[in-house]
Amino acid sequence: MFKPENYGLSPDFRLTKFSTLRVYTEQLAEKKEEKDSAEGVGIGLDSSVIALKNELFLVQSVDFFYPLIDDPFMLGKIALANVVSDVFAVGATEIDEIRLIVSAPTEFNDKEREVVVPMVMKGFLEAAKECKAPVKVGSIAENPWCIIGGVATAVSHRSELIMPYHAEVGDALVLTKPLGTQLATNAYIWMNENSENWSRLQERFSVADIEETYRIALESMTRLNRTGAELMRKYNAHAATDVTGFGIHGHAENLAKFQKAEVDFHIDTLPIIKNVREIAEVLGRSAKLLSGKAVETSGGLLICLPPSQAVPFCEEYRNRTSHTAWVIGKVEPGKRAVKMNPNVQFLSVSES
Amino acid sequence: MFKPENYGLSPDFRLTKFSTLRVYTEQLAEKKEEKDSAEGVGIGLDSSVIALKNELFLVQSVDFFYPLIDDPFMLGKIALANVVSDVFAVGATEIDEIRLIVSAPTEFNDKEREVVVPMVMKGFLEAAKECKAPVKVGSIAENPWCIIGGVATAVSHRSELIMPYHAEVGDALVLTKPLGTQLATNAYIWMNENSENWSRLQERFSVADIEETYRIALESMTRLNRTGAELMRKYNAHAATDVTGFGIHGHAENLAKFQKAEVDFHIDTLPIIKNVREIAEVLGRSAKLLSGKAVETSGGLLICLPPSQAVPFCEEYRNRTSHTAWVIGKVEPGKRAVKMNPNVQFLSVSES
Repeated sequence: MFKPENYGLSPDFRLTKFSTLRVYTEQLAEKKEEKDSAEGVGIGLDSSVIALKNELFLVQSVDFFYPLIDDPFMLGKIALANVVSDVFAVGATEIDEIRLIVSAPTEFNDKEREVVVPMVMKGFLEAAKECKAPVKVGSIAENPWCIIGGVATAVSHRSELIMPYHAEVGDALVLTKPLGTQLATNAYIWMNENSENWSRLQERFSVADIEETYRIALESMTRLNRTGAELMRKYNAHAATDVTGFGIHGHAENLAKFQKAEVDFHIDTLPIIKNVREIAEVLGRSAKLLSGKAVETSGGLLICLPPSQAVPFCEEYRNRTSHTAWVIGKVEPGKRAVKMNPNVQFLSVSES
Repeated sequence: MFKPENYGLSPDFRLTKFSTLRVYTEQLAEKKEEKDSAEGVGIGLDSSVIALKNELFLVQSVDFFYPLIDDPFMLGKIALANVVSDVFAVGATEIDEIRLIVSAPTEFNDKEREVVVPMVMKGFLEAAKECKAPVKVGSIAENPWCIIGGVATAVSHRSELIMPYHAEVGDALVLTKPLGTQLATNAYIWMNENSENWSRLQERFSVADIEETYRIALESMTRLNRTGAELMRKYNAHAATDVTGFGIHGHAENLAKFQKAEVDFHIDTLPIIKNVREIAEVLGRSAKLLSGKAVETSGGLLICLPPSQAVPFCEEYRNRTSHTAWVIGKVEPGKRAVKMNPNVQFLSVSES
């Protein structure tokens, strides 16, 4: 765990203070629930796939966010995973260029700037190694908040891509990461801040519980969707999206709307990071989480796979990543909507 | 000229207030002069050229800035010209995708958000039409400052690109836009703010003078470097860069360092927007401007052309754009440095 004092910073240095977005995201998410709008917290700019000449396509994702954890190195790793995720979601596994964009907050002192910015970059670059793409680092001169983001670009042949609109009745819906990243990271911050929320959580959870939850979330957010993308191609996926700011429900809805066939996505299982369901309960925030509407950061791929391919996909995913992918539902005839099973099954995920 | 009250905004609404970067840039530029550092105000992230397969190259530019003028529509146009400029500088005239990234400042009220953000987008999209590339609009959720930027991407065949390192002894140095954009736009803001600088400028300039200077700067900053790029290819340019945050001297230095041949760039002429030289004089800021070190926004291309091609280049540039390009110097044997002629000639440019 990141200890600012080990790097010559004040022990109370908190990177997450250099953005009010953590609070803001929660407020927006509340509003979203009220309005039932699909607007959500749209921090991500999504990816685009543009036809070039000779069956080549330009696949590009642009994504920014603000610190959601205080550990600069892990934040850099998450930023990388988040930026490349949109490209992987269309099956483009070979990325040609990655840009990191980072702004040091105007209020950083010299020491903070010297320590934190290189740590973010180091995390980003280390995570990028797995993508084997050249990385260029730039910066937005100065900004009151700390912004971390990037651009991932792939030029891919048509045969390499999985266009996200071929879901078929009978397809299995597979998810490659658990849900609940926002509450998992916030609980850890509340604990470190000794905030009011922590005093409520403390009645039910130990420090070790919250640390475990945080570790599971960190592992999940830093895990690249690259293996998922490779296996999507191997097992003939019909459509996929990644799960981020709109939550599993919002992204499933977006994907459903996009389908050529008249289908609905029926979701009957939600894998949730260990303790997060109970954290939501204590804080009175269960409705959003349990309806699949909690905001996620660097979430997994949601994939429509031919039914016979779902089990081998999940098996090979486990073998290659040591982590579970879950069949969470099914594609049925319908009107391009998402149906949550009223008796949805919640799984507690403790893999880290 | 943009009048906020015509759009239902308060007459004293000023977009440039939603960034302290205007002030910050000036301070940094001062520091730069002191340190004689090449760091400058590096807002731009420059472009990159990456080899793909089959003689194809991925050319990409990522660029952000903060409001330097108060007119949202014109700001959008400048942002577009600025984003695509780096791609044009390597001769890639066919852009495959453009992204606009804009953040509404957290302190905007609803009306300001409703009016200003769409106006910025409109300016950006209108200017993008000339590039014939698909444009995607995204946003950085919220941010204390107003950020405007984007990503321009081209996938180009090797034969379409002008790699920036083939300058030869005897080449002419051609510049396609005048210098002095920063003081030209600031003078207009100072006038509107009735600031102390304006009380000093008023002794020498009328409102009409400053408005004319501002118009010349706006025309220049919104003019795309596309025609320049097309003509670079037609007239067999050996190397080029665009001129932005480092000023003409800084960008010439960067380009010189990059050359394969042992050459220096000798600059003997600086075309400057009308009145800007005198504005600098009144304010005691001449040193930076006259040494080519003033920060520019969306400046022209600085091009190394075979000597026989420089005049036809400039003639065709005039015919196609109704604007002048100037031969401002020559490539001589040397050590990859920039030499300013001590008797440099200053041209006053009044084209708008």
